[in-house]
Amino acid sequence: MMNTPLLMTQMIERAEKYFSRKQVVSRTESGIHRLTYAQIAERTRRLASSLEKLGVEKGDRVGTLAWNHHRHLEAYFAIPCSGAVLHTINFRLSPQHISYIINHAEDKLLLIDADIIPLIESVQEELQHVQGFIIMTDKDELPETTLNPVYHYEKLIGTGNPEHPFITDMDENSPAGMCYTSATTGNPKGVVYSHRGIVLHSMAMGLADSSAISERDVAMPVVPMFHANAWGMPFAAVWFGTSLVLPGPLFTPKLLAELIENEKVTITAGVPTIWLGLQKEIEQQSYDLSSLRAVLCGGAAAPKGLIRAYQKRGLHFIHAYGMTETTPLVIISKLKSYQEGLTEEEQYVFRAKQGTVVPGIEIKVVGKDGEVEPNGTEMGELLIRGPWIADEYYRDERTNEAFIDGWLYTGDVVTIDEEGFIKVVDRTKDLIKSGGEWISSVDLENALMSHDAVFEAAVIAVPHEKWQERPVACVVLKDQFKDRVTKEELIEFLAPQFAKWWLPDDIIFIDEVPKTSVGKFLKMALREQVQERYAKQ
Amino acid sequence: MMNTPLLMTQMIERAEKYFSRKQVVSRTESGIHRLTYAQIAERTRRLASSLEKLGVEKGDRVGTLAWNHHRHLEAYFAIPCSGAVLHTINFRLSPQHISYIINHAEDKLLLIDADIIPLIESVQEELQHVQGFIIMTDKDELPETTLNPVYHYEKLIGTGNPEHPFITDMDENSPAGMCYTSATTGNPKGVVYSHRGIVLHSMAMGLADSSAISERDVAMPVVPMFHANAWGMPFAAVWFGTSLVLPGPLFTPKLLAELIENEKVTITAGVPTIWLGLQKEIEQQSYDLSSLRAVLCGGAAAPKGLIRAYQKRGLHFIHAYGMTETTPLVIISKLKSYQEGLTEEEQYVFRAKQGTVVPGIEIKVVGKDGEVEPNGTEMGELLIRGPWIADEYYRDERTNEAFIDGWLYTGDVVTIDEEGFIKVVDRTKDLIKSGGEWISSVDLENALMSHDAVFEAAVIAVPHEKWQERPVACVVLKDQFKDRVTKEELIEFLAPQFAKWWLPDDIIFIDEVPKTSVGKFLKMALREQVQERYAKQ
Repeated sequence: MMNTPLLMTQMIERAEKYFSRKQVVSRTESGIHRLTYAQIAERTRRLASSLEKLGVEKGDRVGTLAWNHHRHLEAYFAIPCSGAVLHTINFRLSPQHISYIINHAEDKLLLIDADIIPLIESVQEELQHVQGFIIMTDKDELPETTLNPVYHYEKLIGTGNPEHPFITDMDENSPAGMCYTSATTGNPKGVVYSHRGIVLHSMAMGLADSSAISERDVAMPVVPMFHANAWGMPFAAVWFGTSLVLPGPLFTPKLLAELIENEKVTITAGVPTIWLGLQKEIEQQSYDLSSLRAVLCGGAAAPKGLIRAYQKRGLHFIHAYGMTETTPLVIISKLKSYQEGLTEEEQYVFRAKQGTVVPGIEIKVVGKDGEVEPNGTEMGELLIRGPWIADEYYRDERTNEAFIDGWLYTGDVVTIDEEGFIKVVDRTKDLIKSGGEWISSVDLENALMSHDAVFEAAVIAVPHEKWQERPVACVVLKDQFKDRVTKEELIEFLAPQFAKWWLPDDIIFIDEVPKTSVGKFLKMALREQVQERYAKQ
Repeated sequence: MMNTPLLMTQMIERAEKYFSRKQVVSRTESGIHRLTYAQIAERTRRLASSLEKLGVEKGDRVGTLAWNHHRHLEAYFAIPCSGAVLHTINFRLSPQHISYIINHAEDKLLLIDADIIPLIESVQEELQHVQGFIIMTDKDELPETTLNPVYHYEKLIGTGNPEHPFITDMDENSPAGMCYTSATTGNPKGVVYSHRGIVLHSMAMGLADSSAISERDVAMPVVPMFHANAWGMPFAAVWFGTSLVLPGPLFTPKLLAELIENEKVTITAGVPTIWLGLQKEIEQQSYDLSSLRAVLCGGAAAPKGLIRAYQKRGLHFIHAYGMTETTPLVIISKLKSYQEGLTEEEQYVFRAKQGTVVPGIEIKVVGKDGEVEPNGTEMGELLIRGPWIADEYYRDERTNEAFIDGWLYTGDVVTIDEEGFIKVVDRTKDLIKSGGEWISSVDLENALMSHDAVFEAAVIAVPHEKWQERPVACVVLKDQFKDRVTKEELIEFLAPQFAKWWLPDDIIFIDEVPKTSVGKFLKMALREQVQERYAKQ
């Protein structure tokens, strides 16, 4: 067979050639913009040529600090198609972590949204390799800034070559992108994506058995483009000529609902917090969301109640699982054809699991005695292998903790059932070990969140003299139920569902669950708060 | 990213692990058999272990001469997953070509359907490398045969290891399969498929924007498994846990209709001749074919009338294009979302074209002055490049004629329109050159076949003193129209559709268009017949 490499250049060129009329709808600070793929491709070529003029060479890292919008999309292709490495940076991290990341990756240039300038100004003294800042803005003039040298994105690409050829003389294993993932302790860890990995991952997203992204879709990635490639949705969408809706900065649930309604979005993706917010919004006001064929949910386990709420409205909620280390899609919850014969309740049991492994990826669930039985109850750590799974952390000794014998050790404790459905039970670090037995904090949380009065719940371990650890639940009530539900009522609600020793020793009502910058529960922070509280008592 | 190779072992192991209950429905000489993927996988492991015992080593070629059934499917995986090369042999070729192919590939073993034994007996003296014959039959005892040594498939695998591990220590570019394609002159030419090529091709078949094969499908490849991997359908189906229906030996249109009805087939694939036959059948008798979501048609251009006939019955007819050299899928005709706004007639114009290129493949249409304009009229030769396109003919000097500068020169003359839809106009060798201008035989044929009375039509060039070549049409009338239509009527029917000089100089009524072993019009044979006829006159 021909030795043609799997390169991202093919993806944007396909949109340019065959889907030039299809549109990208982009919301920025100044409102909604509509660009065709012909325009996006031309601007991408201009940007690629401008980057080259600024001295970007094969293998150089170019950072982005930006919301989901068309300029970020152009960078998504211009950087790797110049042979450089697209380094998406999570601007919600602490300034220390951000400067660490930029220095560790040795970013040569940064593309920055205008509203993120102050953040970068605050760390500019520490940046060791950055040779220039490109500001993405709708305004004709740059805001005042101490950043230097600084370029205006539109003016820069205005002088770029609209027919600039992309670099195709590359090995498919060349780095195309990178992203840092938060560590429980210490600095974030870098993950490098190859062209091959991104192309194969995009194919996997287009499979009828996976998210089935196609030309017919209008795809809206709500998950940030700085977070694991917005789950690969922008890459796949461009390749397949899918219309894209990019919701831009500081969006609200209301804005998302309006975008879905107005742009007839068919598929969207985000973390449970986003869908909890949207659920609240559509309970209060009526929107026509009938165009939606799939709501992809990942990043954390979605409570069954949330899935049910969407399904009841005819919105198909699809649970998925991945990590920054896995590009990210590896597991997706689609019922098998013969499972359609199950009752609705039986179906929810499967829908609430993370799902089955996508074609191209291999998994193993390993307990202390080797691979666990696929019976849906035995717990083990999820191991993953495949061509879009990282094999190291970039220049980081912590590689040895997670990449062992060719497998990624995810740190997620899961069960696998007879049908191959994976259910995340907990993080290895969040499991509660009571009297030598494991208690799943996630199971307790999901049960609590299925109570009508509960908005969010997080269950953590507190140290215990006799049992080593015991579960304590932190619960956020829905506004209309504030001060109207007691801890006894909630324990009573849980009692029939769990063994007695699984029931939380205490339930604490809080205003909000602290979250990471990507919307995951920050249990470490919660543990500290709760432990302080107990110490004060 | 991890350096995990794209190997076919993953495909069968996925079916074994996660879709063990799904079924393969296999029709053989004795009737319908139903096997689960658990059984198929176990039998495949047994066969792999038996092949090893018989001395098959990495890289060895193992030939199959068989219909579409479960044993052939087992060979489809057991051979490549042992590191050997699955060589599917077209048993409809001449005995000389068959012995040439077996010798040229240096096949070590042959797996043969019992009814094909006489054919192989007739050439056994010539076979230079074959060390054994495995007979696939439902009967307990082998038929009398001069083949030697000879093995009974079921008895052989009965002693095989049901847990035999597949070989995974392989480079993804290792050969997995091979198939010979007929040449216009001389011996057939060999094409070798790699594991990587087959895995990527299977992914392409699963894309929502391509044939979208999924777990929910019941797939029936009618195209023979000896012909370009039955268009890759068995590979993709096993990988995705799709139910398979294999129609076995000597099927009739009636049998296909019954299988679709009884097994609720959702997707099927074959050449136009098959669908012409089925159309006749379903016009005569009523079947419930409502399960069918897609009828894939390739191998030759389908007449618009045929597409229309299927669409009118609510059967979604999908034109596709590929070659033995291309694994084979490269182009598929799916309307773009915004083309749904076209009138039915306008849609047929696109549906009747071969379609747009599938993700992962690149094409060019090259005329005498370089790439042609995408305007739907300018003609050029179709060039193809990509990771599932062959880069040579196996040990064959004719490689240099077709593989040039990294592109496959298909020998097909096509147009490409503004939407990227490719339309095959002719074989470079079948174009009619009249007075220095090109006339498309395919366009004339399709126009003729859209006439109510016409069953099949083939247009060929006959030498002409003044114009060099002129078109002559050979027409097969439908039974009920035999002797009731004149050549003048047909010319009159064509007249408004073409320039005057395109109209055939003569129309000859024949009983049948001679076809290749895979159902394509054999124009060379027709040309000889017609030229003889003119010579006699």
